[in-house]
Amino acid sequence: MKIVRVNMSNLTVTAADPPPEYGLLGGRALSSRIVADEVPPACHPLGPHNKLVFAPGLLAGTNAPSSGRLSVGGKSPLTGTIKESNAGGVCGQKLASLGIGALVIEGRAADKGWHVLVIGEGGMELKPAGDLVGKGCYEVNERLRAGYGPQIGVICIGPAGEMLMKAAGVSTSDREGGPGRYAGRGGLGAVMGSKGLKAIVVNTRKSFETPVADKDRFRKASQVLTKALQNHAVTGQALPTYGTAVLVNIINEAGGLPTRNFSAGRFEEAAATGGEAMAEAVKQRGGAGKMGHPCHPGCVIRCSNVIPDEKGGLLCAPVEYESTWALGANCGIGNLDHIATLNRLCNDLGLDTIETGVTLAVLMEAGVLAFGDGERAIELLDRELRHGTPLGRIIGAGAAVAGQVYGLTRVPVVKGQGMPAYDPRAVKGIGVTYATSSMGADHTAGYATATNVLKVGGFVDPLKAEGQVELSRNLQVATAFLDSTGLCLFTAFALLDVPEALQAVADLIAARTGRDFTVDDAVRYGQEVLRVERAFNAAAGFTAAHDRLPEFMKEEALPPHNTVFDVRDEELDAVYNF
Amino acid sequence: MKIVRVNMSNLTVTAADPPPEYGLLGGRALSSRIVADEVPPACHPLGPHNKLVFAPGLLAGTNAPSSGRLSVGGKSPLTGTIKESNAGGVCGQKLASLGIGALVIEGRAADKGWHVLVIGEGGMELKPAGDLVGKGCYEVNERLRAGYGPQIGVICIGPAGEMLMKAAGVSTSDREGGPGRYAGRGGLGAVMGSKGLKAIVVNTRKSFETPVADKDRFRKASQVLTKALQNHAVTGQALPTYGTAVLVNIINEAGGLPTRNFSAGRFEEAAATGGEAMAEAVKQRGGAGKMGHPCHPGCVIRCSNVIPDEKGGLLCAPVEYESTWALGANCGIGNLDHIATLNRLCNDLGLDTIETGVTLAVLMEAGVLAFGDGERAIELLDRELRHGTPLGRIIGAGAAVAGQVYGLTRVPVVKGQGMPAYDPRAVKGIGVTYATSSMGADHTAGYATATNVLKVGGFVDPLKAEGQVELSRNLQVATAFLDSTGLCLFTAFALLDVPEALQAVADLIAARTGRDFTVDDAVRYGQEVLRVERAFNAAAGFTAAHDRLPEFMKEEALPPHNTVFDVRDEELDAVYNF
Repeated sequence: MKIVRVNMSNLTVTAADPPPEYGLLGGRALSSRIVADEVPPACHPLGPHNKLVFAPGLLAGTNAPSSGRLSVGGKSPLTGTIKESNAGGVCGQKLASLGIGALVIEGRAADKGWHVLVIGEGGMELKPAGDLVGKGCYEVNERLRAGYGPQIGVICIGPAGEMLMKAAGVSTSDREGGPGRYAGRGGLGAVMGSKGLKAIVVNTRKSFETPVADKDRFRKASQVLTKALQNHAVTGQALPTYGTAVLVNIINEAGGLPTRNFSAGRFEEAAATGGEAMAEAVKQRGGAGKMGHPCHPGCVIRCSNVIPDEKGGLLCAPVEYESTWALGANCGIGNLDHIATLNRLCNDLGLDTIETGVTLAVLMEAGVLAFGDGERAIELLDRELRHGTPLGRIIGAGAAVAGQVYGLTRVPVVKGQGMPAYDPRAVKGIGVTYATSSMGADHTAGYATATNVLKVGGFVDPLKAEGQVELSRNLQVATAFLDSTGLCLFTAFALLDVPEALQAVADLIAARTGRDFTVDDAVRYGQEVLRVERAFNAAAGFTAAHDRLPEFMKEEALPPHNTVFDVRDEELDAVYNF
Repeated sequence: MKIVRVNMSNLTVTAADPPPEYGLLGGRALSSRIVADEVPPACHPLGPHNKLVFAPGLLAGTNAPSSGRLSVGGKSPLTGTIKESNAGGVCGQKLASLGIGALVIEGRAADKGWHVLVIGEGGMELKPAGDLVGKGCYEVNERLRAGYGPQIGVICIGPAGEMLMKAAGVSTSDREGGPGRYAGRGGLGAVMGSKGLKAIVVNTRKSFETPVADKDRFRKASQVLTKALQNHAVTGQALPTYGTAVLVNIINEAGGLPTRNFSAGRFEEAAATGGEAMAEAVKQRGGAGKMGHPCHPGCVIRCSNVIPDEKGGLLCAPVEYESTWALGANCGIGNLDHIATLNRLCNDLGLDTIETGVTLAVLMEAGVLAFGDGERAIELLDRELRHGTPLGRIIGAGAAVAGQVYGLTRVPVVKGQGMPAYDPRAVKGIGVTYATSSMGADHTAGYATATNVLKVGGFVDPLKAEGQVELSRNLQVATAFLDSTGLCLFTAFALLDVPEALQAVADLIAARTGRDFTVDDAVRYGQEVLRVERAFNAAAGFTAAHDRLPEFMKEEALPPHNTVFDVRDEELDAVYNF
């Protein structure tokens, strides 16, 4: 596997072997390590010293189940921390199949204009972006597929990334050429924009060409993992049937669905925005609608969906739990078509749906628009944000900035990043993750909801402070490893409950690379990833004082349980004791 | 001297003796100590846990020359650090004459509405603010003087503070009831707004009633200091004749006048915006115009002015160096009437002129308006900001936020605060102060320009890195002491050059308080103030990584000298070694 460097200052593309000490690093481990090794921690995230790293997971491009994820890393303009955001879609598998372990976008001369990077069997080159500039991600994908053929994968940014908005994500395409798979969080789309890179075309039919050292062992381990995923209630039934939005009713019932800018834990219209309602809409409307949609070939979970409009046309693919919550309950919006339209706009503009929804709700709290006004929210994205008006710019700058602009104290962010779809007062394990993750408020970094609410991997009472730090710590370590393998985080549901599945993942790494690798190695691997990320953040100026939730969550009780976040600061400071 | 506490949660006002360990603390030393002792460093600056402290200097209310300054302290919404901003005007003397050592505004219940605090010989009470809400600072002063009489001093906020804007300052009145004396920096006007306190009426005729323990010694020391101030070229000639804006031509000549968002160190229209041009306008237009205007009784420097409009009416009082630069050269605006109009709007809206000018220039760099377009800038303040439109809110949020909203890398801020009127690439001592001050980018915290450019207190070459750290350190210590005495910072010009003047200040403290106080004590006193402030900041999450200038100033050479800021990080980290 090569490290490919794309120098935007002199428009050159070069490939080289990784240094030997990078060993088994892949995915998040590799993107974070390259950022830590090469990016000055104090640099301006939108300046020439930042780098944007794309790294397929270690198993990407193999036929291990649900293993195609792509890590995107850099210094975040949203948080100021190191950042990795990872995405599904087809590009991880395709990059790995081309033998690319990491793609590093670096440098930037102001006068070079916008470019598209084309990578394929025939070589790698930068081309002028031409009339793709200013276009939304749907049109970018359509045009590139028209030019290069349907076999390509596309990584791109929309107008939000071009305008260097802190809520801008990086889009990666699905098999149909839709742009809805996002490395959404942390504003990495703005980093891509700051490099003058509009899109990356990964031009290959190949998806499963990553070399495997011990094919027999790999096949056996893959079968064990596949079986575990298929037999687990979450990955084998709930997710394929209702998608990730199956969580809406579950988290609402648990009283942890943040509603109207985190002012309540239950939303009276939640059911209309959840996975069951989506499945019903797909059933009633037919047409393009689909549940059980895989985001890349070889996924056995198939948690995704295609939401049809009233006439059966494609409205948005996918609408995930986080998106339907951020643009739904959190904004007091109970109309699924409004939510899907907002989601489509985010996909087109190149925006993180979570940050966008959290920001809209903050603006609703400020009185800029009313809670529940989906039509006005649609206008704000389609008119104000798309054209970069002052209000559109405020939305694109994310919740923390919007809160500062309007002088609010109820701003649900950690390290500048908007909180995802679990209120930390009712799901305290995830609160510990939000507070202490090296990424800012991020649910995927240590998904304690699994154990707090879904009772996967045991049970820790979500309303009590006890046990949450240990839970979050263990999950953060495990996740840092999983994010490096290319396996979807959702495999964790099975891994937490099925010991032989966990062993199978270690076997997959060993069989793929031809090196010894045990479950204990996986733990050490995850710990090392966190250490690298944490050291970067410390050098960038982050301290324990930043590992805290917003003041209002420690003082304002959340209905219906009327609890506050009460994990003590000293406990939070112990998360990294490993 | 009493500490008066105004509790905005239950609308009570109480007075008590300070704790004995506060000893000789006054002004900045006292405001910073109260904040450090009572405000949780991690609290939200606009939440109920922050406090706003007003503390007259130790000598305020005496007849020592130029000694009436008032310190305003709190946790800054602009920087997140501890903050003290101090102002002239009449209120420091009046508060001290009423026996008030510190006025602490604390708490806040959301449903209490807006209030005015009235303090006088007859007592202290909170009254509903009534129709003062929403009014500019000029009208607030007029109405309060109409109601209470011309003897009052007024501390107030304008619409910017009411809207909790981070660029909002705290206005204090001059003898004529003008609102133009500002504790401008750090957004303390938003803290006052967050408390629901629109104004403070200090209702007393008294200005010189602070008790003095040894009147004879005091009088002698006062005479020595007065003489030194009158005989020094800066305080005895330049400042009374041309005001602080005498610096425009001097700093421009030195190549350190930041022009068009810190892209050059000389402005071709500088002369039209300087103190000589102001004196000429006063001479030509007559009417209300005046140079050599004192901001409070007993000032022997009288550096201030009243700028007349074309017909001789009062356009703005005062227009200071920092303001004429921020709203002038830094925005490429060379029209003094435009500058004075912008300054008046800032005074009326309750905005820090420095932060406002730095933000406008950042927006000019972003293309929101053109460099040099004074008329559009006036519209933006008078229409957009006054009415809290999205663009007005962006301006009011300050330069750092504006830079984030527009994705800029050339944003001249440290710790979120916009830089004052000396480019650190051409005046490197002030760059060290900007980087390392506990207040964010602040020229007054260690005014190295004195020695770098004016050759007061010796000479350290402004274009070289050598010697700047020691210079800034010594000045920061001295300033922390001076800001505690109530003496105007401009007395430092004489103190740096005249040893007996420095001794006279120590004598004034001793004579006023009846305690021993030496010049060495003054140094220790200043060091202790800095330690207290620095410890607060560390607990709030600030590290050496925050003691840095923006990246572009280390890489982009500034014309005409074509120098970059090259004081090394390790040197900056040594500033607090004392």
